[in-house]
Amino acid sequence: MKVAYLGPNEKTYTGQFTRHHFLDAERIPIQPIRGVIMAVENNEVDLCTVPVENLHSGEVRDTLDTLTECHRARIVREGFFDIYHYLGALKNHEEITKIFSKDEALNQCSRYLYGHYPSAQTIGVTSTEEAVQRIIREQLLDTAAIASKESVSGLEILAAPEELCPDNRTRFFVIGVQPTLSTGRDKTFLAIHPRVRDRPGVLHDVLGFFRGLGINLEYILSRPDRSRELKGYYFYIELDGHETDERVIAAINSARLSLDPHKKHADTIKILGSYPDSMWKNDN
Amino acid sequence: MKVAYLGPNEKTYTGQFTRHHFLDAERIPIQPIRGVIMAVENNEVDLCTVPVENLHSGEVRDTLDTLTECHRARIVREGFFDIYHYLGALKNHEEITKIFSKDEALNQCSRYLYGHYPSAQTIGVTSTEEAVQRIIREQLLDTAAIASKESVSGLEILAAPEELCPDNRTRFFVIGVQPTLSTGRDKTFLAIHPRVRDRPGVLHDVLGFFRGLGINLEYILSRPDRSRELKGYYFYIELDGHETDERVIAAINSARLSLDPHKKHADTIKILGSYPDSMWKNDN
Repeated sequence: MKVAYLGPNEKTYTGQFTRHHFLDAERIPIQPIRGVIMAVENNEVDLCTVPVENLHSGEVRDTLDTLTECHRARIVREGFFDIYHYLGALKNHEEITKIFSKDEALNQCSRYLYGHYPSAQTIGVTSTEEAVQRIIREQLLDTAAIASKESVSGLEILAAPEELCPDNRTRFFVIGVQPTLSTGRDKTFLAIHPRVRDRPGVLHDVLGFFRGLGINLEYILSRPDRSRELKGYYFYIELDGHETDERVIAAINSARLSLDPHKKHADTIKILGSYPDSMWKNDN
Repeated sequence: MKVAYLGPNEKTYTGQFTRHHFLDAERIPIQPIRGVIMAVENNEVDLCTVPVENLHSGEVRDTLDTLTECHRARIVREGFFDIYHYLGALKNHEEITKIFSKDEALNQCSRYLYGHYPSAQTIGVTSTEEAVQRIIREQLLDTAAIASKESVSGLEILAAPEELCPDNRTRFFVIGVQPTLSTGRDKTFLAIHPRVRDRPGVLHDVLGFFRGLGINLEYILSRPDRSRELKGYYFYIELDGHETDERVIAAINSARLSLDPHKKHADTIKILGSYPDSMWKNDN
């Protein structure tokens, strides 16, 4: 089995997640996210893994956008991975005035950094590993790095994950082409694309159909279309239930009829996949 | 007047936006976003400017998080800035196998890069300017950079903004401490923090109060709490109307009473600010 994942290598969190869950597979790093998902869409691999949301830095728009455009690739499973960031500096370090890391890690740790290093400059570099290597190579006494435990092992630890960025989890989707069977505890992810704008309550209408059938919603996001001309927007909704559940089918059909009564647009509501609910538990 | 903005310098898009709108002010670069907003909260500057959303890469969680925690700092104005990315390489370049830029610019251009350079490796560097400088300094014939027109002026242009990333706009908030007066065409941003979980339709209830009073919603996002213990979530809602409008006051009061009938939590609905609606127009 071939499994693509977001590279450049297995040291990334997506790489670690993929290794853990697909130890015996042929694992293929691809960049960027669009290419990872398109490898499934174009039948070059069997499955892929991509990040979809981090508790601190938010959802990954490229994952949602690309899935919305695909015809075959769909979500088949979700998983979570705890992320442990460490702040490290040379053992003989002086006052810290610069902090190196990946932009995303710097954002995730911004609360701690503001509290403890309010005047330090944060500098995004290519990888968390490079942040550490540059400090060692150039003997930067005024610089700290945010990186994994493994990467900072040669440095003095200035802050451990529970201070630096507690409860840091990333959620991943496993993408494939085979719809999953219902397990009785599933979730379904929808992309809803109403063609109307400035209509008060369109979302309220849609939510009403789900509520009316007792379907809980876990996640909701509205965002404008990428295109200036369309002037529309997307809603992404994640609901409790499987796409083959009668209630889910009925609610989606009602919402679709309400948003597109003349059935002009095939993609008004698109099911991005159904998958077992792992309930924000860390399953690695 | 002192205006803080997201640094490191005026070459950033936030820096350019700030210079355009506050030409005569003392402009102070600060990093990261949390520090920029806290400079207003702590009375060190009069105003600040921070990015809140990009059409391609999504909202800036740090801006929303920090505003939600502030007691004084609030949104007083919104603005938009068109972003023009160029892809450039050395004039005698060979086949492009690597692309350097800021992570965010790489994400924003991912559709074009996947279509035209499907096997190129994307590498995040500290700034778009550094991406160009490294190519020139190290004479990298196999590498292209995504950067501003100014930065790529010494390179051969491989792709212009309309191909590379059309309709790329970032939305900014101007943050201050003085509530703004109503102009008759305003928007209001709310952070809603229900203390209940797994209750079907809590959002439907809230939306119903706004809809019942004919208030349009422009933006909505639900996200989990950062803390694992709370197991709650936030909704961010942007609505048409000013916080002093009778209808807006009535809808917020109804929603608050519904979410927190015993008035236990002062922050169940927090108004992050009201500001003139600039309607996704580019006003620079």
